[in-house]
Amino acid sequence: MANEVMRPTVLAIDTSGPVAGCAVLKDGKIVHLVAMNHGLTHSETIMPAVDEALSAVGLRCADVDVFAAVAGPGSFTGVRIGVCAAKGLAHGAGKPCAAVHALEALAMNAYGFDGLCCPILDARRGQVYCAAFDMSRGMPERALEDAAQPLEAFLARLPEDRRLIFVGDGVPVHGEAVRRALGDRALIAPPSLRDLRADAACLLAAARPESWVEARLLRPIYLRAPQAERQRKAALAEK
Amino acid sequence: MANEVMRPTVLAIDTSGPVAGCAVLKDGKIVHLVAMNHGLTHSETIMPAVDEALSAVGLRCADVDVFAAVAGPGSFTGVRIGVCAAKGLAHGAGKPCAAVHALEALAMNAYGFDGLCCPILDARRGQVYCAAFDMSRGMPERALEDAAQPLEAFLARLPEDRRLIFVGDGVPVHGEAVRRALGDRALIAPPSLRDLRADAACLLAAARPESWVEARLLRPIYLRAPQAERQRKAALAEK
Repeated sequence: MANEVMRPTVLAIDTSGPVAGCAVLKDGKIVHLVAMNHGLTHSETIMPAVDEALSAVGLRCADVDVFAAVAGPGSFTGVRIGVCAAKGLAHGAGKPCAAVHALEALAMNAYGFDGLCCPILDARRGQVYCAAFDMSRGMPERALEDAAQPLEAFLARLPEDRRLIFVGDGVPVHGEAVRRALGDRALIAPPSLRDLRADAACLLAAARPESWVEARLLRPIYLRAPQAERQRKAALAEK
Repeated sequence: MANEVMRPTVLAIDTSGPVAGCAVLKDGKIVHLVAMNHGLTHSETIMPAVDEALSAVGLRCADVDVFAAVAGPGSFTGVRIGVCAAKGLAHGAGKPCAAVHALEALAMNAYGFDGLCCPILDARRGQVYCAAFDMSRGMPERALEDAAQPLEAFLARLPEDRRLIFVGDGVPVHGEAVRRALGDRALIAPPSLRDLRADAACLLAAARPESWVEARLLRPIYLRAPQAERQRKAALAEK
C-alpha cells in the first residue's frame, strides 16, 4: 500500500449517507476518527467535527497533504456538503483533494474477506446503489460495476460460487430480503462494520496519490440524475 | 445476535491501549463513535468524550442500559481508567456494567473472515498479548486461549491450514516479523481495522446480557501481574 511508503497526512470527510464522519491519517496511523449518526443536519455537524479533529491532533490545514471527501454515490445533498467542505479546506490551504468512492470505502470494512463484499445503499424509489468487490487479497478489487437498481436485480448479478458479505445503510432495510434470497451464503455485517467510516476513506485516498486533483476539479459521483433534474426532464418531455 | 432481539442502549469505553474510544449503540445502530490516538492521557480525554457522546445523541446516563468497558488485556493503567470510568457511570445511574475482552473486541474487525483472526497487543518485555478467534461464521469463536508470550511462541501455536489476519497495536511493531514467518498466508489488517473500536465493544456487550454485572463486580482482565507486584515479589524472594 502506498501509505506504507509515503505516509501522507490525510483528512477525510464523509457526509454522503446517514453518518457524518471525519478522520485523520498520520504516519500510517488513524489518529482521530469520529462517526455521528445523530439524525442532525450534516451541514451543521461536519465543520465543527473537522475543526475538533485537527485541533485534537495538533494539526493546521497547512499540515494536511490531501483533503479527501466521500464523493458518492449517496445522498445528493450529503455528497455535495462533503465535497464542498473538502474543496473549501483544500483551496484555502493550497492542497489537493481526493474523491473517494462510497461503495469502495464501505468494502474496506471487509478487508481480507474470502469472497465478495456487496455494499448496498438505500437509494429510495425501490432501488439500491450497489456494487461488488473481491476482498480476498485485502484491498477492494472491483467485481461488479456500480448500479442503481432494485435489490432483486442486484442479487441476480451476483455469482453463485462465492461467499458474500453485505454492508451499507441498505442493510437495515434490505437485510432480511438478502437473507431470504441467499441463505447461509450471505453474511450481514454487524453494526460496527455496516457503516462507511471516514478512516477507510483516508486509506483509499492515501493509497492513490495519482487520483489527487486540484480542489476545483473535485466532482461528486452520481449514479442517477438528481430529483430536480429528473423532474425538469419529465416536465420538458410532457410539453 | 441478541442486540437484534432486545436492542439495549449501550455506552462503551475503551482506554485499554493507545486509542481512547467511546461509542453508543442505540436501536441496533452505532449512533456515535470516537477514536482518539493523540498520545494524550486517557484519564483526561475519556470523560469529556463520554459527555460529548451522550449529549450529542441526546441521552442521559439513566437512558443507558449497560455501561461497557474494555477490561483488558492491555495497558494496566489504561484498563483501570476505563473500568473505573464505566463503574462510576453505572453506579451513579444504578445500571449494570459489562466487561469486554480486548482481544475479542479486536477480532470483531474481521467479522466473517474465513479463517482465524489473531489479535496481538504490544505487551513490552519482548511479549505480545495474543489469542486467536475463528471468524468464519461471523462473530468471534475462541480458537486459541489468551497468552502473554514472545511473538515466535504465538506463531508456533497457530494452525498451518488456516488463513490468518493480524490486528492490534502489536502490528506496527511485529507486522514485518509476521510477514517473514508466514508469508502470503497471513494478512495484516489495514490501519482502519487495526485498532480496537469502542463500537465493537458495544456489540459484544449487547450480545451477552448474561455477562452484565453490578458495577462493583466489574473486574479488569490481566494476563500478567502488574509490574509493581512483580517487583515486590522479586524483592521478597531476594530476602
